[in-house]
Amino acid sequence: MRFQLTHSDPKSKARAGEITTGHGVIKTPIFMPVGTAASVKAVHQRELADDIKAQIILGNTYHLYLRPGLEIMEKAGGLHQFMNWHRPILTDSGGYQVYSLSDNRKIKEEGVKFHSHIDGSRHLFTPETVMDIQRTIGADIIMAFDECTPYPCDHRYAWKSMEMTHRWLRRCIDHFNSTGPKYKHEQTLFPIVQGSVYPDLRKISADFITAQNCEGNAIGGLSVGEPAEMMYEMTELVCNILPYDKPRYLMGVGTPANILECIALGIDMFDCVMPTRNARNGMLFTKNGIINIRNEKWKDDFSALDEEGTSFVDTYYSKAYLRHLVISKEILASQIATIHNLSFYLWLVTEARNNIMDGTFTDWKNEMTAKVAQRL
Amino acid sequence: MRFQLTHSDPKSKARAGEITTGHGVIKTPIFMPVGTAASVKAVHQRELADDIKAQIILGNTYHLYLRPGLEIMEKAGGLHQFMNWHRPILTDSGGYQVYSLSDNRKIKEEGVKFHSHIDGSRHLFTPETVMDIQRTIGADIIMAFDECTPYPCDHRYAWKSMEMTHRWLRRCIDHFNSTGPKYKHEQTLFPIVQGSVYPDLRKISADFITAQNCEGNAIGGLSVGEPAEMMYEMTELVCNILPYDKPRYLMGVGTPANILECIALGIDMFDCVMPTRNARNGMLFTKNGIINIRNEKWKDDFSALDEEGTSFVDTYYSKAYLRHLVISKEILASQIATIHNLSFYLWLVTEARNNIMDGTFTDWKNEMTAKVAQRL
Repeated sequence: MRFQLTHSDPKSKARAGEITTGHGVIKTPIFMPVGTAASVKAVHQRELADDIKAQIILGNTYHLYLRPGLEIMEKAGGLHQFMNWHRPILTDSGGYQVYSLSDNRKIKEEGVKFHSHIDGSRHLFTPETVMDIQRTIGADIIMAFDECTPYPCDHRYAWKSMEMTHRWLRRCIDHFNSTGPKYKHEQTLFPIVQGSVYPDLRKISADFITAQNCEGNAIGGLSVGEPAEMMYEMTELVCNILPYDKPRYLMGVGTPANILECIALGIDMFDCVMPTRNARNGMLFTKNGIINIRNEKWKDDFSALDEEGTSFVDTYYSKAYLRHLVISKEILASQIATIHNLSFYLWLVTEARNNIMDGTFTDWKNEMTAKVAQRL
Repeated sequence: MRFQLTHSDPKSKARAGEITTGHGVIKTPIFMPVGTAASVKAVHQRELADDIKAQIILGNTYHLYLRPGLEIMEKAGGLHQFMNWHRPILTDSGGYQVYSLSDNRKIKEEGVKFHSHIDGSRHLFTPETVMDIQRTIGADIIMAFDECTPYPCDHRYAWKSMEMTHRWLRRCIDHFNSTGPKYKHEQTLFPIVQGSVYPDLRKISADFITAQNCEGNAIGGLSVGEPAEMMYEMTELVCNILPYDKPRYLMGVGTPANILECIALGIDMFDCVMPTRNARNGMLFTKNGIINIRNEKWKDDFSALDEEGTSFVDTYYSKAYLRHLVISKEILASQIATIHNLSFYLWLVTEARNNIMDGTFTDWKNEMTAKVAQRL
C-alpha cells in the first residue's frame, strides 16, 4: 500500500491524498459504505460502483466468519471474488461486534470467548485467529484485534483495556508478519488507538500506535455514545500525534457534519452504518438537511427526491413515491434510500476533497456543517 | 388499443401478435410482472425495463386504492407518473384481493363491502366505483369487477356467482362508456370469463363475454388450487369460444410449464406472483429446471447463477453467493433472485413467440415443458 498526500488545507488540518492498493486507488478523504455480510444492504455491486461511486467498502469479520464461514470464503478465493467486487475492501477485526452482538462473551488476555448470535455456537477470537481470519477473507486493509471500550467507561478500566489492546496489537503484528496473503494481492494491517475519552490515555495509545510504524492507523472507541465535542477533542489530540504521512481512519463515524469536522482535524477515512441503516428507516441525508420521508408533509410532494442529488434515484423518483414505498414497507424503498444516502456521503467527501485541493475547504465546511444538520 | 395477430402455430392454437397501447407496443404472448403497490417488489423500474425487459406490468387496484389512495394517485397524474414507468400497465379490478385479503367482506348485488386489511377501515367496491378507481389509476388496460370463485366451489354457487359477474360486467361497461380517461392516454376494458371448473358454466360465460364485443378478454377463476389438467381443460374450452382476433388474458397463471401449455391453447397474456414471490424465498426458475438456492448443495458452488441466463445477475453472481445472501436474509438476495426469475419469464415468452413465428413452437414447447419442471 502506498499513501501520497497531495494537498493540505491552509486553515485546518484537512488533507487530500491517494491510497494505492492491490485493487486500485482510493482518493482521500473517503467514506466506506458498510457491507456487513458480503453485501452493502439493498444495493447491487454495480450500483455501488457506477451510481454510488464507492471506492472502497467495509466488510465485518465477525459476520463473515460466522456466515458464510471461512471454508466457503477460502474456496471462493476471498471476499472480492465471493461478492464480485474488485475495488478495495477493508475488514474490521470483529472486536466491535463480539462486544455488541454476541452472547456470553468473556474477555481474557488470550482473547475473547463468545457465543454466536446466530446459533449460540462457541468461538474464540484471539489476535492470532483474527489475523488468520482476515487473511482468509483477503481484504486489502485489515484491522488489529482490539477491545472497543463502551461509553461511559471508568478511567481504570479504559487504561487496563488499552494496555491489553496494545499487547494484542504486538501479537497481531507478529502474526501478520509471520504469515502471507492467501490471494494474489497485498494486505496492510492498521493498528487502532484506544483510550476512551481520556486525553492522557489517548496520548499514551497514540504514541504506542505511532511507534509500531504501520502503513496506516485507526482511531477506535469513539462514536459510541459520547458527546460530539468529546469525539472531536479526542480525534484532534490523536491526529496531532499520529504520523502525518500515513492515512488516518476514524472508525464508525458518523453524521455528515461529524465527517466534515473530522476531515478538518486530519482524518482521511470513515465508515458508518448511518447512511445505510437510516435509509432503511426512511431518513435521507441531503446537502440541504435531513428528510424523514415518513413525514405526512411529503405525501403529495411530487418533486424530485433530491433535485440537487447526484444519483439516478434523485430525479427518477419523487418524494411522494418514496414515502408511499416506505409506508407500504416495499423493498424498493430501502433500495432507493440507500442509493441516495450513500451517493450523498460519497459526494460529500469528494466535494470536501475538491475544496481541499482548491484551498477553500474551511469556509465550505463551515457553511456545509450548518446546512446538512438541518431538519427539512 | 389495437391487436394484430401476425403468426399462428401450425400444430397448436398458439399465436403471436402485437397489442398497441397509448404507452407503446406489447408483443404477445407476454408475461406481466406483478407490481402490487406501485412497485414490482425488489426491482428498480430501470431494471424492469432494461434488464428484465418487461413490456407491461400489472398493478393491484385493491392495494393502490388503500395505499397511496386515490387522492395521491390523481394528484400524481396517475400510476405511470407516480412510479415513473412509461410502458403499458394493466390493473386488476381489486376483486380477487377483496376476497383473499380483506376482513368481513359481504358480497351483495350492489357490490362488496369490506374492511381494509391494513387498518380495518370500511369500504365498498361496486362495478361503478371500481371503474372510477381504475380511471384514476389510469392503467392502459383495466379489468371488469367480478367475483373470483374459490376452488372447490359447488355448481350452484358458481352459477349464481357467474350470473352476478355478468350483471356486474354490464354495469362496468355502462359506467366505463359513460366516463372518459383522466389522463392523456386511452384505456381499454377487459371483461372476465368465470364459471369455476364447470364446462357448462364456462361455455355460458365465454358466450356472454364474447357478446360484449370488448377489445380484449380475460379468463379468471383459474389457478386457484384446481389440478393443472382442469385449468387446461377450461382454458381450451374458453379459448375456442372467445374471439380469435382479440387478445386473451389468463389471470394469475402460472408456472413456466403452465404458461407454455396455455400459450399452446391460444392465450396471449399472463400474470403471476410466482416469479417474484418465490424469488424472495430462494426459488429460481431456469430453462433447465427449478433451483432451491437454500439447499446445502449450492453452498460451495461458485459457478454462475445461471450460465444460460439472459440478465446481468446470472453471470455477475454465483450460486454460493446468492445462497449465502438468502440464508443471511440480505435484501440483495431478493433483488438478485427477482431479476433472475422475471428475466427468465420474459425470456420464456419471447422464445415462445420466436418459435411461433418460426413455426417450431409445438416441438419446442414439448421439450421445454419437461425441462423447466425438473428439480435441480
